[in-house]
Amino acid sequence: MVEGKILLAHGGGGRLSRELVERHVGPRFAAGPLEGFPDAARVSVGGASLVFTTDSFVVSPRRFPGGDIGCLAVHGTVNDIAVSGGRPRWLSLALICEEGLPLAELDDVLDSVAAAAARCGVAIATGDTKVVARGQCDGLYVNTAGVGEALPGFEMGAAKLRPGDVVLASGDLGDHGMAVMAARAGMNVEGRLASDTGPVHRLVLALDELAPAVRFMRDPTRGGAASVLNEMLGDRDDIGIVLRERDLPFSEGARAVAEVVGADLLHVASEGRVLLVCAPDAAAVILDRWRALPEGAGARAIGEVTRDRGRVVLETAIGGRRLVDVPQGELLPRIC
Amino acid sequence: MVEGKILLAHGGGGRLSRELVERHVGPRFAAGPLEGFPDAARVSVGGASLVFTTDSFVVSPRRFPGGDIGCLAVHGTVNDIAVSGGRPRWLSLALICEEGLPLAELDDVLDSVAAAAARCGVAIATGDTKVVARGQCDGLYVNTAGVGEALPGFEMGAAKLRPGDVVLASGDLGDHGMAVMAARAGMNVEGRLASDTGPVHRLVLALDELAPAVRFMRDPTRGGAASVLNEMLGDRDDIGIVLRERDLPFSEGARAVAEVVGADLLHVASEGRVLLVCAPDAAAVILDRWRALPEGAGARAIGEVTRDRGRVVLETAIGGRRLVDVPQGELLPRIC
Repeated sequence: MVEGKILLAHGGGGRLSRELVERHVGPRFAAGPLEGFPDAARVSVGGASLVFTTDSFVVSPRRFPGGDIGCLAVHGTVNDIAVSGGRPRWLSLALICEEGLPLAELDDVLDSVAAAAARCGVAIATGDTKVVARGQCDGLYVNTAGVGEALPGFEMGAAKLRPGDVVLASGDLGDHGMAVMAARAGMNVEGRLASDTGPVHRLVLALDELAPAVRFMRDPTRGGAASVLNEMLGDRDDIGIVLRERDLPFSEGARAVAEVVGADLLHVASEGRVLLVCAPDAAAVILDRWRALPEGAGARAIGEVTRDRGRVVLETAIGGRRLVDVPQGELLPRIC
Repeated sequence: MVEGKILLAHGGGGRLSRELVERHVGPRFAAGPLEGFPDAARVSVGGASLVFTTDSFVVSPRRFPGGDIGCLAVHGTVNDIAVSGGRPRWLSLALICEEGLPLAELDDVLDSVAAAAARCGVAIATGDTKVVARGQCDGLYVNTAGVGEALPGFEMGAAKLRPGDVVLASGDLGDHGMAVMAARAGMNVEGRLASDTGPVHRLVLALDELAPAVRFMRDPTRGGAASVLNEMLGDRDDIGIVLRERDLPFSEGARAVAEVVGADLLHVASEGRVLLVCAPDAAAVILDRWRALPEGAGARAIGEVTRDRGRVVLETAIGGRRLVDVPQGELLPRIC
């Protein structure tokens, strides 16, 4: 008999999210492709090497500066395939609708799905629609699963990390979470902050022959960069990560909202960014290729792998050092 | 501007469900594999021919005689792959949990998922967990997507149907829907009725070299056999279907519950059955192979393709004929 109940924080992307997966999901399924809980699984079917992933989207509000639940659901699954070293090809689309949802709003979401899929070069191949009574879901929940082709050359994982490896971010971090929070709070951020929701698959395809130099790649969604980097270290207690505060790419708008709501932007979700760790000699070329794309225009090196023994540390602008831990508490529910 | 709102009946598997997909989803996505709205899409990735599908599960109550939402979610996706002519291989598992859900119940569901996956020979390859606040979902919703290998030889579709083709059912129809309704109503049906939730992939694999003789195959879930057979006819107005009432396989338990709740068992969901239409000379062999498996023990021929001009007709036991139409109204919400 397991005691306890699901808490909002179990969905926040922080420590409790991790524990839920490790204690309840892991022991039952982690023998196969789920081992290590990647964003997407590499599986083999009919002789082909595929990447397969799923995500549900419960974002509130469904429309926010820079996007909506429809394009977010497409980008989220496209990005999970991409950062797992795959070329996104086919998506599924499953809707859970609440009785009373205006059909015009459903149409807007479907338009957004269709436009995002077209932009990402993926097709919606299969779908499902369920309806529940009033009060049994909050308007509309969307699930997308996706199938892509595994790209050659990627062999990523915590075991590959070495001191001196460089940590890259493809652009500003935390804009998505702060844009959603601003919309939820009714703050007017027009022109100053928009979600970064967007596809990152071109950033991955641009790596091309540099794939073997990539140690690790992830999109920093729920739990933000702090969660991704701590997860990345995994069980490695011989290395750490140092981030340089002066190099962290945070937009003015995200900083302003974070100050109002009291958020640490390293804990806040992006939905169109990549964090990548690579061999030192590959960093400059990757940055060049990324910056040549609009979605990578803000790319920069933000830190490196150290001998810091399993810790992620921030070097502050005034020369101090503080621990960057996984977010603990309730965080920002329903951010994606 | 589209007027109107989502109604419960949009999720019932009847005419409104069909309209929702045809009017709102279809125009945006139906150019590719979604054309004709199959249960699963045949897609090509990396040189392999795959079957890809998704379903969300919102069944209420989550535990019912014969199963629960966990095994139902596995069987549902395994079956969609199978009846589309695929060998199920990999599943995704996405959970939307309501704050306050007991972890012990979540564990029971995950145990059920794991056991069903093992029985079906599929692996849970990837997953996702979201949490929403109290009152924002009804405990737990589950989505599974699945990837399988396309089996050779299947070329199914309305265009393949010919007068004289035989309609087979792999077992009793409607047990799942009636078992869920009985559980919802607090009726005690123990020992007399259980959901038929279960995998049908072995029934499909058993067809083997007979695949080219199969014109059409579908699992009669939401909307029941009536919906499947009417959908099967599609735009064909040169043929029809006749069902023989005396041959329809309905269990005593399902008949009893149907009488109490006023349901037509041809409109009620099964979750472990196949309806198959084949060339006349293949029917006897298929029935033999099916009956050799426990899940096909109750298989029988229930009707045939006629020149009835687009109609599904029931020949009653006393010699009458009545139209078998698609269910119209609210039906049974949250049956799967």
